[in-house]
Amino acid sequence: MSASLAVTLSDVEAARRVLAGQVLRTPMLPAPKLSALTGAEVFVKYENLQVTNSFKDRGALVKLTALGEAERRRGVIAMSAGNHAQAVAYHAARLGIPATIVMPVTTPFVKVAATRSHGAEVVLEGETVAEAQTRCEALCRERGLTMVHPYDDPHIMAGQGTVALEMLEDRPDLDMLVIPIGGGGLIAGNAIAARGVKPDIAIVGAEAALYPSVWNALTGDRRAIGGPTLAEGIAVKNVGTLTLPVIRALVSEIVLVDEAQLERAVNAYLTLQKTMAEGAGAAGLAALLAKPDLFKGKRVGLILCGGNIDPRIAASIMVRELERDSRIVSFRLSIPDRPGVLGQIATRLGELGANILAVEHHRRFLDMPAKGAKLDVTIETRDRAHADEVTRDFERAGYQPVAIDTGGVVE
Amino acid sequence: MSASLAVTLSDVEAARRVLAGQVLRTPMLPAPKLSALTGAEVFVKYENLQVTNSFKDRGALVKLTALGEAERRRGVIAMSAGNHAQAVAYHAARLGIPATIVMPVTTPFVKVAATRSHGAEVVLEGETVAEAQTRCEALCRERGLTMVHPYDDPHIMAGQGTVALEMLEDRPDLDMLVIPIGGGGLIAGNAIAARGVKPDIAIVGAEAALYPSVWNALTGDRRAIGGPTLAEGIAVKNVGTLTLPVIRALVSEIVLVDEAQLERAVNAYLTLQKTMAEGAGAAGLAALLAKPDLFKGKRVGLILCGGNIDPRIAASIMVRELERDSRIVSFRLSIPDRPGVLGQIATRLGELGANILAVEHHRRFLDMPAKGAKLDVTIETRDRAHADEVTRDFERAGYQPVAIDTGGVVE
Repeated sequence: MSASLAVTLSDVEAARRVLAGQVLRTPMLPAPKLSALTGAEVFVKYENLQVTNSFKDRGALVKLTALGEAERRRGVIAMSAGNHAQAVAYHAARLGIPATIVMPVTTPFVKVAATRSHGAEVVLEGETVAEAQTRCEALCRERGLTMVHPYDDPHIMAGQGTVALEMLEDRPDLDMLVIPIGGGGLIAGNAIAARGVKPDIAIVGAEAALYPSVWNALTGDRRAIGGPTLAEGIAVKNVGTLTLPVIRALVSEIVLVDEAQLERAVNAYLTLQKTMAEGAGAAGLAALLAKPDLFKGKRVGLILCGGNIDPRIAASIMVRELERDSRIVSFRLSIPDRPGVLGQIATRLGELGANILAVEHHRRFLDMPAKGAKLDVTIETRDRAHADEVTRDFERAGYQPVAIDTGGVVE
Repeated sequence: MSASLAVTLSDVEAARRVLAGQVLRTPMLPAPKLSALTGAEVFVKYENLQVTNSFKDRGALVKLTALGEAERRRGVIAMSAGNHAQAVAYHAARLGIPATIVMPVTTPFVKVAATRSHGAEVVLEGETVAEAQTRCEALCRERGLTMVHPYDDPHIMAGQGTVALEMLEDRPDLDMLVIPIGGGGLIAGNAIAARGVKPDIAIVGAEAALYPSVWNALTGDRRAIGGPTLAEGIAVKNVGTLTLPVIRALVSEIVLVDEAQLERAVNAYLTLQKTMAEGAGAAGLAALLAKPDLFKGKRVGLILCGGNIDPRIAASIMVRELERDSRIVSFRLSIPDRPGVLGQIATRLGELGANILAVEHHRRFLDMPAKGAKLDVTIETRDRAHADEVTRDFERAGYQPVAIDTGGVVE
């Protein structure tokens, strides 16, 4: 391992001693249903069970503990879209250090509220992370605060790297670790720790396809960076100057994951593994869905690195997946506009074993006769075959069913 | 402890040896956000992380392992609304034992599909558990199968009791265990184990208020039993003949939990603890919400006993809770029916920081002038104060906002 890297295995081991008894030693468990889904032998490290529900607790506490007395008194500042903010706010409060957190105005409400609840001053500023960054640096200078960088800091990287030490202690036989990449603090720290303990372990990075910053830096590619992503926790435009050399030296492959794969991964964690992952937290599993051949038959450790997803988004993802599986389907029927028709249709749906979720009448479309109407029906079915059976039944009865895409409506 | 109880501590210890390495030794973790919510010091035992996502794996495997060679060849049958079915199907398949599972026709699709996926023959029969039971007994006789009862069996009870042995090994200082009650197998097994290891520990049962079977049996009360409950996993009308004497002897209190408390508990597990609990699985937490004074300041171990909730129901619960907190609000505005009005309203909502989720025009209500219209607006807000601010702003502007209850619509 190159001596020029910012962090060493012994730094990570020292960080682990700092964290002992102060943050959760999270469980890592086999995930047989995710194994069946992906073809790999999957183990999940539940960093979403940390107190602030992400791995950021580790780096933040290591950094704060390393501050001198005068720095602690003046206080710290951090710029973050969420998890880093919560971790800094929570551990600063525990240690009696004043904390200021700057967040973009677009930050999900749930993360703003959580950070405030830990007692930090939250400053909402800027449409983007870059604009918030500018404000953060100004406040830092004005108030003489210490900046806690979310990733490009040796203490932060060493703290995050403690995850891999625990994983390899529990399962020394892991072949690969799959680790989300934002600024690169998590993967860099864990690559140093894991390759230090087990030199032949493969470290694979999972980066959002909309934010391929590290991918571009490593490959010389010039993919576009930006856009709305479910994985806002790893939507980072600037690669770390300390993290990039580590990734270049120790990471064997980076998998870009698209929004559909992130969404499927969040849903699989919820419905198969019964745990809440935010988009960034599910990026490792998304990588397995994106490139199954890379992982097939391997013992793969996933870091489920965060669980702070907006409940409305999580709810919508589950419903959209039911719609993709045709377990919730909507179709528009052409019906004669007279009494008793809805009763016939509802009765027939009941006989077919379909549960009605919603019905809506339309009488004013121009593509139907004046004495006709359209009826939009949303039903719950057992599976796609059952949905097809229902649709065919209504075709035979002359109702001309046409599928409608409802896009995540729960009732 | 009475010598007449069906199961002893040494039976549970023997069951633990059978299960070692065969089912997950699930994690138990402190839950600081649930502690802040309830006033107790809460620890959660994650039985929802078992392979079939409930504690039922334990009892089922102990029972199947105890069968003789001829019984194994003929096969087993079980009647269950869900988790017991999945556990029997999964472990029977692992052991090469043919399994038939009888379920009521009302069983959630997700549970039927999961049971079939384990290779069992599923027979859907009867509107109720009692009707399915009759069919199950008939099939059992016809085919010479061995019945695997969901709770009233010493092997099952001993298997379930292994949960408490693990909890007290991890945290010998627990003051109380709070355990859901359906037929009573889980609480009976764990009461025997926990009081055997630590005689002064308090065992509290959590029973659905709609199904107070054990409550009635113990108190002589005659509360009505029945109705649709979120906690279908503990919606049991018949108390076990083996479990009831154990509960009578060793359980200090039973807390009845209503549907609103169950729903709040499922939501708290999802949004605060980042884990998926089914209604029955959340009954212990619901008991803490129902009777906080009973648990205040105590070290309380909750058995999160199952995670098999229908994704549509889980999604709806999260959205309903956002509506209760006014983080999603819908109101109906009275507007003049002319071009540009929606633009003004949408712009104003943007300025106020409210995210629009849905809008719908109505022009045919009779309580408005012919040139007027109603506009239904659903928005996402930061919190209740923010929602009130938005409503007042539209009142001042003359739009006469009226709150609408939408009941869990996600868009």
